[in-house]
Amino acid sequence: MEPSFLPQGATSDTVALAMGNPAVEALPWDSLQQAGARALALPRAHQALQYGDEQGVPELITYLADKVSRTEGILVAPQNVMITAGSTGAVDMIARLYAHRTGVVLVEAPTYRDVLQVFRDQHLRLVSVAIDDDGPMIEPLRALLERLHREQALPSVFYTIPTFHNPGGITASLERRQAVIDLCQQYGVLIVEDDVYRDISFDKKPPPSYYALAGGVGVVSVGSFSKTLAPGLRLGWIVAAEGVIQTCINSGSLQMGGGANPLVASLVTEYCQQGLWEAHIDGLRELYGERRDAMLVALAAHMPPDVTWTKPNGGYFVWLTLPQAVDGGWLAARAKAAGVLIAPGHSFFAEGDPHTRHIRLSFSYAQPEAITQGIAALAGVVRDLTEGA
Amino acid sequence: MEPSFLPQGATSDTVALAMGNPAVEALPWDSLQQAGARALALPRAHQALQYGDEQGVPELITYLADKVSRTEGILVAPQNVMITAGSTGAVDMIARLYAHRTGVVLVEAPTYRDVLQVFRDQHLRLVSVAIDDDGPMIEPLRALLERLHREQALPSVFYTIPTFHNPGGITASLERRQAVIDLCQQYGVLIVEDDVYRDISFDKKPPPSYYALAGGVGVVSVGSFSKTLAPGLRLGWIVAAEGVIQTCINSGSLQMGGGANPLVASLVTEYCQQGLWEAHIDGLRELYGERRDAMLVALAAHMPPDVTWTKPNGGYFVWLTLPQAVDGGWLAARAKAAGVLIAPGHSFFAEGDPHTRHIRLSFSYAQPEAITQGIAALAGVVRDLTEGA
Repeated sequence: MEPSFLPQGATSDTVALAMGNPAVEALPWDSLQQAGARALALPRAHQALQYGDEQGVPELITYLADKVSRTEGILVAPQNVMITAGSTGAVDMIARLYAHRTGVVLVEAPTYRDVLQVFRDQHLRLVSVAIDDDGPMIEPLRALLERLHREQALPSVFYTIPTFHNPGGITASLERRQAVIDLCQQYGVLIVEDDVYRDISFDKKPPPSYYALAGGVGVVSVGSFSKTLAPGLRLGWIVAAEGVIQTCINSGSLQMGGGANPLVASLVTEYCQQGLWEAHIDGLRELYGERRDAMLVALAAHMPPDVTWTKPNGGYFVWLTLPQAVDGGWLAARAKAAGVLIAPGHSFFAEGDPHTRHIRLSFSYAQPEAITQGIAALAGVVRDLTEGA
Repeated sequence: MEPSFLPQGATSDTVALAMGNPAVEALPWDSLQQAGARALALPRAHQALQYGDEQGVPELITYLADKVSRTEGILVAPQNVMITAGSTGAVDMIARLYAHRTGVVLVEAPTYRDVLQVFRDQHLRLVSVAIDDDGPMIEPLRALLERLHREQALPSVFYTIPTFHNPGGITASLERRQAVIDLCQQYGVLIVEDDVYRDISFDKKPPPSYYALAGGVGVVSVGSFSKTLAPGLRLGWIVAAEGVIQTCINSGSLQMGGGANPLVASLVTEYCQQGLWEAHIDGLRELYGERRDAMLVALAAHMPPDVTWTKPNGGYFVWLTLPQAVDGGWLAARAKAAGVLIAPGHSFFAEGDPHTRHIRLSFSYAQPEAITQGIAALAGVVRDLTEGA
């Protein structure tokens, strides 16, 4: 039996570069234990244990509105914030309430693999636009929207990961962001910005969010405690126009179940109000920055010259492009046999991978020495496959 | 400001008979606090804080499989159980994955108000069948299904609350349950049985669940910790055929977010494994039984003779039918002014209330003396309205 706190498929002998799990060292179990004890003491316990306000625990909403206002230099009011059941609950809710107007959702190619099934479960049609190192490619996006407009199949929603992209590792430039906003406003497309990695920046502050750039109009910004605190909390939030928040509050799931995870939200409120979260994020930048460095150094040292990769300034992921002869799925299978878990790239494309020469590497979970060793082993497998081809 | 652990709209001066909140006295905050401390101690904390298995925390699944097997006298295996984000998460998931085959969902008239919007948010068409004191009315159900079959608009799913109905307060008889299963099997309709009140029985054990009667075929049984532990946990489960559980595991939301609420599920596992939950449920039967008695005694003592009501053997609710001249919404407004909060009946009907002479009374939240006083005041308002008519 594997220790169950390892990501699926990982054992203590393998190097886990496949999953987007935070580092074990990054889970502040002791502070959260203390916050839990406070959340479950009277009188707060009664609030934490009953049905909660649909919008979420008010103190956490206020805290998040302040934090986003402060870190992004914009004015976010409590009525612009709502607590959600992780970013999953947020994206699922926004898709349910906003994507069925046309039934079409635009995503990036590549995009976050697991979100694709969330849209498909809702019987939505997926279309995609390519990204490069600077974000969504504007001329292909313009041509796609023009064509879909002619076909009366415009997307209702553009799901995008502008900052420290999963799986791409890239960050959309300010110019690209502005061009995306212009196009989406022109065609009436709601931008759903999955910004869960924004706080994990290593080198410089990323460009302003779509929400900030668009002045809060036509954008839903999705945040999460999963990457910067703990995924097991299942807690996230959205920042959006007041009308969007009200539509979400009035949705069936919220009316039926009350606000998202009141007990956990109370615990996280206790944790955040002591200033622990922002200090923890500072530590994460250092922890993950070191792992990013270890991965980039090892890639440069060991990979054959015809392999290329992105150089992320934050987040969890590096995106690799393999030599023509090497298939990502094939590499993943061979790497697993060599003790290295990686994510083959084809599943990150909504409309099929034009070439399957991609893999995603995560530097969040494995320790730096393991990353170094894992990349060396992976490079050996790539060489074997290249030479065998 | 109202103390925030009162249900919405309630103040310390009002009698809260409107909402389905558990009693404040029924929230074991201290035992849950201790369970939380254990769930957030190492090594379990790392498991509780990471992404969880899509099916849920294995120890809780085993516990629930054992409990359902034991209390229902059937064999439920762990592969028949899945942890969900409350009953809301369960119903939303099943609707998303199973109701779009035909796009039609059958509900009872009346039914649980807040579930209607969950189905509507998914753009599903709602049809309804009347219930009486013995459950769904079989001949109307047969006629409805025959007609929908002719119209090629059969429901994919029948959402039903067989035991201690919300809002009806009634329990479907064994004969009705068997007839419902026969009809649903004949027309290929999946029964989604919302059985969240089953454990709160006062007088005698309710009939077997649809899941038990159908031998686990064609039925998804939905359970929850909201009514017997705490709604703020947002934790529930389903019992279903292994194929259904696998379909849910493979759905987008589970693949994206991992299993439902790992931290809370770990906490509840700790609580349940000490035998505390089943002892707590025994206490709830006494607590809520006393409140049911207080309500029925007060109704008999104070209500005019042309008012009738159901006599629940368990659960949280009594369903009242008013004299012809009295509208439920009108009564609710007048009662609120007199300090009594009640739920008008019209919103519990998917296709409109044929007559609006209904209200739902909840005996779960208010204390027995308050219930007695509240019903006396409510009866006074009914008399005023009847005489004024």
